Amino acid sequence: MNPVTTLLHCDPVLLQALKEDITSEDVTTNAVMPHAQKGEAQLLCKEDGILAGIGVFARVFTLLDPRAKTEAFFEDGARIHKGDLLATVTGDIRALLSGERTALNFLQRMSGIATYTRRLADALAGTKTKLLDTRKTTPNLRVFEKYAVRVGGGYNHRFNLSDGVLIKDNHIGAAGGVREAIERARAYAPFVRKIEVEVETLDMVREAVEAGADIIMLDNMAPETMREAVALIAGRAETECSGNVTAENIAKLAETGVDYISSGALTHSAPILDLSLKNLHPIADAQA
Amino acid sequence: MNPVTTLLHCDPVLLQALKEDITSEDVTTNAVMPHAQKGEAQLLCKEDGILAGIGVFARVFTLLDPRAKTEAFFEDGARIHKGDLLATVTGDIRALLSGERTALNFLQRMSGIATYTRRLADALAGTKTKLLDTRKTTPNLRVFEKYAVRVGGGYNHRFNLSDGVLIKDNHIGAAGGVREAIERARAYAPFVRKIEVEVETLDMVREAVEAGADIIMLDNMAPETMREAVALIAGRAETECSGNVTAENIAKLAETGVDYISSGALTHSAPILDLSLKNLHPIADAQA
Amino acid sequence: MNPVTTLLHCDPVLLQALKEDITSEDVTTNAVMPHAQKGEAQLLCKEDGILAGIGVFARVFTLLDPRAKTEAFFEDGARIHKGDLLATVTGDIRALLSGERTALNFLQRMSGIATYTRRLADALAGTKTKLLDTRKTTPNLRVFEKYAVRVGGGYNHRFNLSDGVLIKDNHIGAAGGVREAIERARAYAPFVRKIEVEVETLDMVREAVEAGADIIMLDNMAPETMREAVALIAGRAETECSGNVTAENIAKLAETGVDYISSGALTHSAPILDLSLKNLHPIADAQA
Amino acid sequence: MNPVTTLLHCDPVLLQALKEDITSEDVTTNAVMPHAQKGEAQLLCKEDGILAGIGVFARVFTLLDPRAKTEAFFEDGARIHKGDLLATVTGDIRALLSGERTALNFLQRMSGIATYTRRLADALAGTKTKLLDTRKTTPNLRVFEKYAVRVGGGYNHRFNLSDGVLIKDNHIGAAGGVREAIERARAYAPFVRKIEVEVETLDMVREAVEAGADIIMLDNMAPETMREAVALIAGRAETECSGNVTAENIAKLAETGVDYISSGALTHSAPILDLSLKNLHPIADAQA
Amino acid sequence: MNPVTTLLHCDPVLLQALKEDITSEDVTTNAVMPHAQKGEAQLLCKEDGILAGIGVFARVFTLLDPRAKTEAFFEDGARIHKGDLLATVTGDIRALLSGERTALNFLQRMSGIATYTRRLADALAGTKTKLLDTRKTTPNLRVFEKYAVRVGGGYNHRFNLSDGVLIKDNHIGAAGGVREAIERARAYAPFVRKIEVEVETLDMVREAVEAGADIIMLDNMAPETMREAVALIAGRAETECSGNVTAENIAKLAETGVDYISSGALTHSAPILDLSLKNLHPIADAQA
Amino acid sequence: MNPVTTLLHCDPVLLQALKEDITSEDVTTNAVMPHAQKGEAQLLCKEDGILAGIGVFARVFTLLDPRAKTEAFFEDGARIHKGDLLATVTGDIRALLSGERTALNFLQRMSGIATYTRRLADALAGTKTKLLDTRKTTPNLRVFEKYAVRVGGGYNHRFNLSDGVLIKDNHIGAAGGVREAIERARAYAPFVRKIEVEVETLDMVREAVEAGADIIMLDNMAPETMREAVALIAGRAETECSGNVTAENIAKLAETGVDYISSGALTHSAPILDLSLKNLHPIADAQA
Repeated sequence: MNPVTTLLHCDPVLLQALKEDITSEDVTTNAVMPHAQKGEAQLLCKEDGILAGIGVFARVFTLLDPRAKTEAFFEDGARIHKGDLLATVTGDIRALLSGERTALNFLQRMSGIATYTRRLADALAGTKTKLLDTRKTTPNLRVFEKYAVRVGGGYNHRFNLSDGVLIKDNHIGAAGGVREAIERARAYAPFVRKIEVEVETLDMVREAVEAGADIIMLDNMAPETMREAVALIAGRAETECSGNVTAENIAKLAETGVDYISSGALTHSAPILDLSLKNLHPIADAQA
Repeated sequence: MNPVTTLLHCDPVLLQALKEDITSEDVTTNAVMPHAQKGEAQLLCKEDGILAGIGVFARVFTLLDPRAKTEAFFEDGARIHKGDLLATVTGDIRALLSGERTALNFLQRMSGIATYTRRLADALAGTKTKLLDTRKTTPNLRVFEKYAVRVGGGYNHRFNLSDGVLIKDNHIGAAGGVREAIERARAYAPFVRKIEVEVETLDMVREAVEAGADIIMLDNMAPETMREAVALIAGRAETECSGNVTAENIAKLAETGVDYISSGALTHSAPILDLSLKNLHPIADAQA
Repeated sequence: MNPVTTLLHCDPVLLQALKEDITSEDVTTNAVMPHAQKGEAQLLCKEDGILAGIGVFARVFTLLDPRAKTEAFFEDGARIHKGDLLATVTGDIRALLSGERTALNFLQRMSGIATYTRRLADALAGTKTKLLDTRKTTPNLRVFEKYAVRVGGGYNHRFNLSDGVLIKDNHIGAAGGVREAIERARAYAPFVRKIEVEVETLDMVREAVEAGADIIMLDNMAPETMREAVALIAGRAETECSGNVTAENIAKLAETGVDYISSGALTHSAPILDLSLKNLHPIADAQA
Repeated sequence: MNPVTTLLHCDPVLLQALKEDITSEDVTTNAVMPHAQKGEAQLLCKEDGILAGIGVFARVFTLLDPRAKTEAFFEDGARIHKGDLLATVTGDIRALLSGERTALNFLQRMSGIATYTRRLADALAGTKTKLLDTRKTTPNLRVFEKYAVRVGGGYNHRFNLSDGVLIKDNHIGAAGGVREAIERARAYAPFVRKIEVEVETLDMVREAVEAGADIIMLDNMAPETMREAVALIAGRAETECSGNVTAENIAKLAETGVDYISSGALTHSAPILDLSLKNLHPIADAQA
Repeated sequence: MNPVTTLLHCDPVLLQALKEDITSEDVTTNAVMPHAQKGEAQLLCKEDGILAGIGVFARVFTLLDPRAKTEAFFEDGARIHKGDLLATVTGDIRALLSGERTALNFLQRMSGIATYTRRLADALAGTKTKLLDTRKTTPNLRVFEKYAVRVGGGYNHRFNLSDGVLIKDNHIGAAGGVREAIERARAYAPFVRKIEVEVETLDMVREAVEAGADIIMLDNMAPETMREAVALIAGRAETECSGNVTAENIAKLAETGVDYISSGALTHSAPILDLSLKNLHPIADAQA
Repeated sequence: MNPVTTLLHCDPVLLQALKEDITSEDVTTNAVMPHAQKGEAQLLCKEDGILAGIGVFARVFTLLDPRAKTEAFFEDGARIHKGDLLATVTGDIRALLSGERTALNFLQRMSGIATYTRRLADALAGTKTKLLDTRKTTPNLRVFEKYAVRVGGGYNHRFNLSDGVLIKDNHIGAAGGVREAIERARAYAPFVRKIEVEVETLDMVREAVEAGADIIMLDNMAPETMREAVALIAGRAETECSGNVTAENIAKLAETGVDYISSGALTHSAPILDLSLKNLHPIADAQA
């Protein structure tokens, strides 16, 4: 991840997580390891998948011990396999023990997302359709999860309610119609925003495209209707398909010709990828 | 959830999540709804499961609009079914629109955990064995997720590294042996802490029970070995089984006679429960 | 301002400002007013201009005394004149005294921005050109200042580096050319972002429009060149004029046919509008 | 600025400003510059004035890239001229691009204040009268702006409501008279505080000096009255003139013999000084 | 305490203390009291002394339960005696149980300080000498402790390093002499600051008074020397005696004629006053 | 103290304390020492006692000046005597002057606690009884004070309300009896928690031991009754004596055979240990 983002947005979350796990001290570690001692441990892969977040993993240890080092043998995005030695970590054993769970909680979650994303993205190979994430991310981990989606071959939709306009059914109801909602959005939103509108019927599609929507989200439409919608739009707006996307049906959805398919499951339901920190042992400290 | 915990530990996380999703303003909502307008929406169930976090869901809206009200038709722990009307929410439409995603992100995640926990806990019905969670929780959401586990019929293991002693393989290595690690822990840890130790072989079990461990975690043991371990311990310590627990094998694991079975998947891999906020519409404001 | 934005983004800044001004206690106020006493004061206009931030002004007092009330006789955006009574504030005299300077510091600054913006926006009346702000805002007050620009009749450009793409000379240098930079941005940025590029010559304009830029910023161009650029672009991208915009030359700049003119001075050099809180006096407290 | 103040009070504000400008990532920079690359840029002066805040400017880049270096060719307080090369900055190009606007926003504002302060202070040259700032500073930037005033040749009045006593008309009204207010302040305030009182008439001056005020602020008095007030006080208290101070009338105000003249405009209405970061280009990284 | 100070400076510290004591939930309380239940408890005095902080005590419960009420039978500053019923508190029993220790920790500490201060202040009765506190306060509780000193009849010295000038031996060494240090301070410090200097010999006293020090602190001087110093100063500066002040010797120190005597022990070594919250019992909730 | 605890829990409190003492700048230091200058000072012992917190003392200076170094001649836990040179500190003189009071406030308080704890712990020498602290610590300094207790030879009771179960009289009242309260706690609390109950009579002791309490606190019992209670419990639970423990009576209390004696006075009423930073003088900076 970019070092500026890391500094401004990841470090505070990592420290918050470490404080959640260590509200005063790591009792077990301090009992068995009362003094500084350099050590080394191995990050092992226990399940096939895509690695994402190795820099975040390393950062946890560096925050706890500035001299800690992670030598990674794979980069984010790499396909890893059960049994692979992913990295070795060296540093004060107390930092390794106290940071282990937090570092793994981030890495496993991010790798789980990248792995699932990769699976869906691969199913789109050979089509022009791109896979998008949503705002259905884990609260306060969005910057980590949107990154993991990119690592897995997906693309990011808007980051939040401030940086993108997406007019949904409730907004349409509030405004009194598709056209009215689009006009109000265009009048109000900063001009650098594209206007996206969520529609459910071909009539709404027609109204949206005529009102000048930049992006039209086809929500929970039958593939056949979606195909008609894409034809009707005819390139005058970008198209996004949303709702009930699975690894099984995604290729079929792409055949409708939509530009994008978005899936909340990428971030809200991907199981973690099983990884483990093992074989911690003391080593000599050259610098000491 | 307890109001003291809500105030001290949930509210700050909810506000943090709202700020993550609204870094300056909710552009779409402010475009279509420039003024205050009372509205009502329905929380609908789209998938069978266990409800958890309805108070957290309601709290998101109250934080954004102190006059918002959530009338819930089910309590945390209730079995809910596809199509159920779970609650109605009233309040300033802008607060409902701006808080919707955040409120659902928490509620769906918590309900997903409770649903999966309930499934495993039900598989233990009729045995004396209890289901435990772990520290493999989502970073910074532990207080929400440990609560969801309890709602689903599970029990909480320690909350963090400060409030429980758990001697793992790496600690044993550091201390030079099971006995040494347990002795160091007993000498160092506050006397209100129970000493738990993770073991992998019957020899380690023997050493742990003789050194006076309060709890012995049998890690990744074959069921047969586990049964022997329980017999060997003979009630002198509590026993916990850990590793590769699934809905399929958990009943078999319980047959070994362990007191507890812990599962990280409860919190790291449960898919969310599909819920939805729908039918937002303006209503008259009696108070205005 | 929207109540959600107020809660999430204004209140923390207002409290921070109050703590900056009151690091332990307001010594003078506590000396002369040791007990609670309801009072009333008048907000007076001492200079003609546009009012902006009356809700922020009121909020400062409500934060210090939840029973404080501001009765405003003008709304944000109103033209106000020297001598106008703008509002009366009632509440605990100690809150009025302790909050006065902070409340005015915000209100005067916001009104100063709105006043200056109105002056430039009025100079564009009758043209299709819209006035834009920039990111040259006061650090940590952007949400207040971008709002004041809208109140004064201006429009907001992107809020920050995360929610808009603007390729400047340094980015072009880094990428190796206008086309390369635009292509990289399109490949990398979330698809909801428009791609804006800053150009200085007609050659760069040509390259930008061909590479598919959504917005082209004509930076510090002579009016004549700018006119040619607009002709060359021919509606294939939106156009923005930037650099050395003044109340004197803005109408002439608009004649070039650009869609937008942006001015950093709106937020970095507008003098405050002179306002004053006067005639504080005790009043009976009906509720006491 | 002093390193202790920088650490405790500037760094948090700088980081807050960077987060305001980068809510998740700098999209444009990350698109065109995906990897680390050392670069160099020039800080250029585009308008004559006084430099203030070069250390703050440098600090922004160091916070983003600890290896960033700013070589400054002028010190705070120096008179700089259009066309001067003020400094060169080297560091990771991504840090330079992402920090540019924030660094300039601080430096231009501080230099603008110093420039305007210098102009007024110069008008007092040859008199014994000193120029003071006020509490009419930009919310949450007081530590930066009071420093800029000193750099420009001004002097600081109290920092906030906690560290100085200033009895204004409203306090006098609350206490029931000048004498009563001064007595209450002397009884209540820590003994290290001087007691200042704001007066509008010669009668109030008389009462204030007899009640033992340490400093008497002559508010919006005609020069002639002010001269009488100074004679009447006769050195028994320090004197401060306040209200409608301009570069044009300040010398005349000083002729009344007051010890201090305070001006809110120093911090609330000084236009920024035009500076620019230019010519960013990659350079070889000796250390890499 | 003043409500503005309470809001800005006490509430955050109280919440921080509650979070220190409740890192996730109050297990015991939640176990025995799973639902809301209104209750009442009594605050009892177990030791004679001076009450200080009853508002802080009450605030802890109000923060946890907005409907909690504390009916106090004594005000801050009152002499209280063993066995006195000081107050009754009503509110949600869970809030009373969870807040009890934190509320008492503040109240006992503040009352301990007030009690010890009162004892020393009483020993000065009939003299013109006033008792001062120092900066030797408990880290991060200064606002509470300086208030408790005032409640006990003491006076506050400066609050911190920013709001007062006190030149100590090390500063004198750095500046090269008493006179030089005073001159540098007068040139640098905001003019509202009095200049205080710490001296140890009569020669230093002479130098300080001639250099125009506003306050001269006589540090660890023998009473006889102090008397000479006071005579030598002859009212040209205020005088403060510091060092080894006890309840036993303070009257004798006052006889030297110094204006102030300061004692660090007021805040760093006063034992707490023994108070207790007892007889918690459920009561009917009229509102429920 | 452990470096992980220092980073996560001490540093934020130290910085908060420094900001409390330096709300904008250290005026005196900045006046006499406008530029960087390396210096050295001595930490002297002025009273016999136990040293605790030397790492915290050193950390304050390192936070203000990363190049500051503290060479300590004694370790935490050492008996120190009046006149001992405890450490020398080198670093930027401005950091030494600005950090002095904060560093000493922590060190003196921690050493005061360790000294008093040592005195009580020594009185228990030769018995099996251990000395415990309580939750009657200074708000927000618990991590420092519990550490100081350990340094002084005491043991830590639970850290807070979340990590230990202690059923007190009010909880018993709420639950309806000793047995009921213990059962509810066992059902609710995480299984790693020991259940402690506070009792006042032998009947309650009997009920507690039969209900399976892990620890029984004998509160304010007469020594004779306590002896009977210990006999009655007969090793079936651990025993803790609490209430009115002094250096004079503690040995007698231990004779009753209790396992633990807890004393709130360790942290709420121990006077500070008198230490001083002296002889600050400039030294050459080898690195400059």
